[in-house]
Amino acid sequence: MNFIHPDFLLETPLAKTLFHQYAEDLPIIDYHCHLPPQQVAEDTRFENLTQIWLYGDHYKWRAMRSNGVAERFCTGDASDREKYDAWAATVPYTLRNPLYHWTHLELNRPFGINDRLLSPQTADSIWDACNEKLAQPEFSARGIMEQMRVESVCTTDDPVDSLEFHAAIAQANATGAFRTRVLPTFRPDKAMAIDCPTVFFPWLSALEKVTGDTVRDFDGLLVALEKRYAYFHAHGCRLSDHGLGLFPMGEVSRESADAVLKKVLADRSATVSVAERDAFQWRVLFELGRLNAKFGWTQQFHFGAMRNNNTRKYEQLGPDTGFDSIGDGDVAQAMSRYFDALEKEGNLTRTILYNLNPIYNHVVGTMLGNFQDGTTPGKIQFGSGWWFLDQKDGMETQMNVLSNLGLLRRFVGMLTDSRSFLSYTRHEYFRRILCNLLGNDVKKGLLPNDEKLLGEMVADISYHNAARYFQF
Amino acid sequence: MNFIHPDFLLETPLAKTLFHQYAEDLPIIDYHCHLPPQQVAEDTRFENLTQIWLYGDHYKWRAMRSNGVAERFCTGDASDREKYDAWAATVPYTLRNPLYHWTHLELNRPFGINDRLLSPQTADSIWDACNEKLAQPEFSARGIMEQMRVESVCTTDDPVDSLEFHAAIAQANATGAFRTRVLPTFRPDKAMAIDCPTVFFPWLSALEKVTGDTVRDFDGLLVALEKRYAYFHAHGCRLSDHGLGLFPMGEVSRESADAVLKKVLADRSATVSVAERDAFQWRVLFELGRLNAKFGWTQQFHFGAMRNNNTRKYEQLGPDTGFDSIGDGDVAQAMSRYFDALEKEGNLTRTILYNLNPIYNHVVGTMLGNFQDGTTPGKIQFGSGWWFLDQKDGMETQMNVLSNLGLLRRFVGMLTDSRSFLSYTRHEYFRRILCNLLGNDVKKGLLPNDEKLLGEMVADISYHNAARYFQF
Amino acid sequence: MNFIHPDFLLETPLAKTLFHQYAEDLPIIDYHCHLPPQQVAEDTRFENLTQIWLYGDHYKWRAMRSNGVAERFCTGDASDREKYDAWAATVPYTLRNPLYHWTHLELNRPFGINDRLLSPQTADSIWDACNEKLAQPEFSARGIMEQMRVESVCTTDDPVDSLEFHAAIAQANATGAFRTRVLPTFRPDKAMAIDCPTVFFPWLSALEKVTGDTVRDFDGLLVALEKRYAYFHAHGCRLSDHGLGLFPMGEVSRESADAVLKKVLADRSATVSVAERDAFQWRVLFELGRLNAKFGWTQQFHFGAMRNNNTRKYEQLGPDTGFDSIGDGDVAQAMSRYFDALEKEGNLTRTILYNLNPIYNHVVGTMLGNFQDGTTPGKIQFGSGWWFLDQKDGMETQMNVLSNLGLLRRFVGMLTDSRSFLSYTRHEYFRRILCNLLGNDVKKGLLPNDEKLLGEMVADISYHNAARYFQF
Repeated sequence: MNFIHPDFLLETPLAKTLFHQYAEDLPIIDYHCHLPPQQVAEDTRFENLTQIWLYGDHYKWRAMRSNGVAERFCTGDASDREKYDAWAATVPYTLRNPLYHWTHLELNRPFGINDRLLSPQTADSIWDACNEKLAQPEFSARGIMEQMRVESVCTTDDPVDSLEFHAAIAQANATGAFRTRVLPTFRPDKAMAIDCPTVFFPWLSALEKVTGDTVRDFDGLLVALEKRYAYFHAHGCRLSDHGLGLFPMGEVSRESADAVLKKVLADRSATVSVAERDAFQWRVLFELGRLNAKFGWTQQFHFGAMRNNNTRKYEQLGPDTGFDSIGDGDVAQAMSRYFDALEKEGNLTRTILYNLNPIYNHVVGTMLGNFQDGTTPGKIQFGSGWWFLDQKDGMETQMNVLSNLGLLRRFVGMLTDSRSFLSYTRHEYFRRILCNLLGNDVKKGLLPNDEKLLGEMVADISYHNAARYFQF
Repeated sequence: MNFIHPDFLLETPLAKTLFHQYAEDLPIIDYHCHLPPQQVAEDTRFENLTQIWLYGDHYKWRAMRSNGVAERFCTGDASDREKYDAWAATVPYTLRNPLYHWTHLELNRPFGINDRLLSPQTADSIWDACNEKLAQPEFSARGIMEQMRVESVCTTDDPVDSLEFHAAIAQANATGAFRTRVLPTFRPDKAMAIDCPTVFFPWLSALEKVTGDTVRDFDGLLVALEKRYAYFHAHGCRLSDHGLGLFPMGEVSRESADAVLKKVLADRSATVSVAERDAFQWRVLFELGRLNAKFGWTQQFHFGAMRNNNTRKYEQLGPDTGFDSIGDGDVAQAMSRYFDALEKEGNLTRTILYNLNPIYNHVVGTMLGNFQDGTTPGKIQFGSGWWFLDQKDGMETQMNVLSNLGLLRRFVGMLTDSRSFLSYTRHEYFRRILCNLLGNDVKKGLLPNDEKLLGEMVADISYHNAARYFQF
Repeated sequence: MNFIHPDFLLETPLAKTLFHQYAEDLPIIDYHCHLPPQQVAEDTRFENLTQIWLYGDHYKWRAMRSNGVAERFCTGDASDREKYDAWAATVPYTLRNPLYHWTHLELNRPFGINDRLLSPQTADSIWDACNEKLAQPEFSARGIMEQMRVESVCTTDDPVDSLEFHAAIAQANATGAFRTRVLPTFRPDKAMAIDCPTVFFPWLSALEKVTGDTVRDFDGLLVALEKRYAYFHAHGCRLSDHGLGLFPMGEVSRESADAVLKKVLADRSATVSVAERDAFQWRVLFELGRLNAKFGWTQQFHFGAMRNNNTRKYEQLGPDTGFDSIGDGDVAQAMSRYFDALEKEGNLTRTILYNLNPIYNHVVGTMLGNFQDGTTPGKIQFGSGWWFLDQKDGMETQMNVLSNLGLLRRFVGMLTDSRSFLSYTRHEYFRRILCNLLGNDVKKGLLPNDEKLLGEMVADISYHNAARYFQF
């Protein structure tokens, strides 16, 4: 039997039924990703497998370096074919890593290759077969999205972004030239980077430029940000996303944040103390929470990453090149106080929490319940396994914790978080894992053997919950 | 097959044998719960299923709110039937949550309903059937306890409690009118609430009233507390229970604690610094540990909860209404130093540790061994999965960690921790899970296939260890 | 069937094939242990089972104390037979603890007893059978090592050690009298014990003595340490090992460390503040990292233990007697900064990280990738389950986390970490667990059903990766 076959991961007859009858054919709502909207707007074509598969994929680079592959073949000046060969030689060393499954799921769909495993022995034939497909129109950026039945996608965008590519795509949607909706997500992390002048001030200048405002104080910053909320909203944005090391501790007044901002505006080289930074960041995050509520958006929080750990590589290659990892530190108290500050004044909107370190699973899993208010079902959500946890164990653990501490059936499900047009099989992967989990539960007598009840649950988590929750 | 059937959760023939031959019929020692002794003393009858099942059950309220049910149907002024219907509509959304198993285990025993799953479709017939049963004398508070073969129960009581209801129940035991023993547990958390004057001073006044003492200093506080130890001991108390956020750090002198107490006694509105609070709390907890040893009791510590996270709801509904969650923060060092301070002077009595966050499992699992002293087998215990961890995964994880780091066979086993007379099937649930765990181990070759050896182990953990350990 | 049988732990046909065809017969590289080199040099003979099995085994003492066995039978003056009987009576209470498996694996090999389980009923016959074996030459220290096919062993040694016994063993290797290589490991923890004068100064005196140097400042300390690196290197040492509570936080200059050292050299009773201790320790650890790189060694870090928790027992019995446990606290940031400080200047050598608390698994699992540099495959390693985690669950969890976050196939595998000549079956135990893991994965369709591919992986992890990585 092929490694990737129709019943891949489905260990029980019920799991097979659930997947094939209730999940497989549902469209995809990919509500969080890092896809470049320009490539969708321009309907990019890819010359070869390396361009669509290895360019920008720090997961693969990281695995290659761990396998003793030199930087040249990851991010360096080796040819596309050399890079591909280095990856093909690494794949047999990724057994039990999610890359092994992703690789073969992606070769299977959309490329239709499932009779071979990638290795130096099969590298040639797979390279040729894939490149041949990539030359066809159905394998352009848009072609792949339509093939994979992607209904809507939310990219991740800076508040100062012009959203011109989203507008162009919306135009293509309007004319019927392209069916997948591509919506922006408001990611204002740089508004919090008060301690990093080389990030903060250029961003602030860009904000001033796109709004026509001059930011002289904290209120001015909020006015400018709110203009961008309105601009994003008009472009279909219904989601924000906030990347945090840990939640800042606070409940700080607007005046305190104002003092910090004025200090650095007066002297860009002024030192920002840890206390000043925390105060500023708490207040910005709080005001962003209020704006999220004002616009009726869903807010997402990704916390717990420790980035750019390797200084030498950072200086050579920049961020997002595979040198990030999982951090630790306390979160429960700060997270609780932050959400309570919003809830107290009725400004806590729909919220999704993503933790990178699984030690926070139970804190997050119980945090939800503190702020469920009987309005939207599943209003506060535990996001699917993020980044390093986006693998079978991580997804199962997240679903098990959510099940035990909350309501799995209200879960909005999977997202790719990916930069690549080839990642949509991760939704398939998730759906298979979900169906398998329920099938095994029934086998053990943990769930009633009721196909219809469980089938509805599978369909809800795979598609309908997200459709109802986000209301794009 | 019915969802709840005689072999529910028992996946192997050996598991079935172990449960049915060695565990099922053993009586229940429920050594930690929150049952209202007044309802036992008065042998309360319940008018309908909502009164016995939903009143006061913050687990169910929490699930209902997560499912989009308005507060009115949880804690509000909806009718009993409306609340029940809201719960029945929520149940199909609790699949994989422990509530789904608890619900159907409780309908099965004592109500005898196992041919239907609770949902809006079955709500009517289940409401009628249960209410009919509740009208019968075997379904009074005492009736249920006797039906469920409950041998003894330990409630959770404030040191200032009169224990009048325990006395009344003891009287009923003496006359043979009621067989289950109901003993008090000494829970002196309010003695530590020095930083919360609205809790501390009313409690101190009550303590002064019941002892006839006037507390002028730390020694006076201890004298009064010891009087209550003696009073509780005379009423059959053999257990204390201590609820902590985290273990306080210290090794503080009595003089330091005295200074803090005198400060607030002199001026009730005086500010207590974090350092003063910690000093006072450490010393009170240390003196309580000494008193636990002096009276030969078992002491329990429940740590790691983060309570009342939702201010708005707290102001509307008060504590214990479903807005608590799991906290984090370091514990190993403080816990080690606390127990060592008692052990150094020979005052460490039998101890049970319950952690709410599973990240502490390995700290607790190895902490036990630091203070096992070769007197009582299993003298320091790792308590069964608490609160949010009181579910199949949580119990299995606790038993697996305990197995790997200590001696599972010396474990004192299950407790309900419940406010409800319908929770005794949690002992059945635990016993099934335990038998299933051992059955699967034998199937995998991890344990010898020796029914007698494993049967004795099951019986020890289900009943005999607790009987020997607590010596009620 | 016997409890320990040829297919113990192997649940699938493929697991059996993988173990018997690819793993079972490979030699053992035990690259980290605490074996006394003197006993190898002298080829110690053991009079009875207690001497080889219970003397110095704090795992067993801890289990016995937990089972209510008095200290006398653990570390006290009871006879060897009495101690053995106390252990035999405890064994049936260790079901599900790794001791139960270890005990019977060790009775099986090298003693050949697999038809009985140890208990008071079998104690006599097992005592006699083992003692009879121990009287034979193949059961001397060396005899057992050769029987168990141990190719090389790395002991754990203080920098001031004369290594005379290692030299004697090397001599025996050279003459062909003994085949197992026994190499030293450089463990310079005492060089960091600046806050513990009773440890630091005697050690410093010994260092001065063996080097002929007088240490007057930090540079002098480094000069002396480097002499010992050279001495150890000449004796075949290729590994260092560093035991840490947590990683110190810093990036401290040599001048700062120098100031702290000079302060205590000037006044041995001077108080060392926490900040001074951390500064000194960070810098020492950094300089040791540089030396590890300079000599081309592999460096190991064991972190997260909390030792000597029971003061009374410590004063009676000293360290390493069974009163240690698992600590907590943040590690990610400090660990990242430490390795980056070395990496920045090109001085990060091959590294193995061992965490005692599994809450650090994901921090460690992703830390590896930050510093993999494309030179040695698997250059930064996640060490196998350490101490309390050296059990089936712990090993499986470590391998699962490593698989998901890195490259399992590059893992250097098992080590005993043991003080005993009877622990070599832990390599067998590990190999069985590994093969079983892969067999179950194939059964679930998670890995391709390719015996050769998986067999090579098993052989790599069991032996070849370590052989290539350490280059002894």
